[in-house]
Amino acid sequence: MHKSSLICMRQYNQPDQSLRIKFGNRVRELRKKLGLSQEELGFKSNIHRTYVGAVERGEQNVSLDNIGRLAKHLKVSLSELFKM
Amino acid sequence: MHKSSLICMRQYNQPDQSLRIKFGNRVRELRKKLGLSQEELGFKSNIHRTYVGAVERGEQNVSLDNIGRLAKHLKVSLSELFKM
Repeated sequence: MHKSSLICMRQYNQPDQSLRIKFGNRVRELRKKLGLSQEELGFKSNIHRTYVGAVERGEQNVSLDNIGRLAKHLKVSLSELFKM
Repeated sequence: MHKSSLICMRQYNQPDQSLRIKFGNRVRELRKKLGLSQEELGFKSNIHRTYVGAVERGEQNVSLDNIGRLAKHLKVSLSELFKM
């Protein structure tokens, strides 16, 4: 297989890092709006504070269940959460 | 520990199954609107068709990366995807 094909396949399979970063920024923005610390949001959402930090830095491929928990405790609908 | 506390903890930790089901129904609705089969949507999104099926049945705790891929090939914004 050509090196170029491999590069192409790699790009095709690569997740969109920018989405994780945009989502993390949106979570941080909404959390701060509510005056919550990462620890407080984590405690309410039953998610560890280090995980909340990682989500905000765009390091986590956060799952639907956790997205739902975050939206609930950020007091926005899922549709609102994804307005970013 | 009391049995009631255990039940309470279990409920607290339990993911919101209804969210997975609502999300699955929304994916199915948008996919059908585009006239795509699960296989076609899976192929475009680089997600296995059996996984697409499981998402639609609410059996998968789908991740942000895959949510992004699905939105892209369902031709809606993430905010639109979560209007459910």
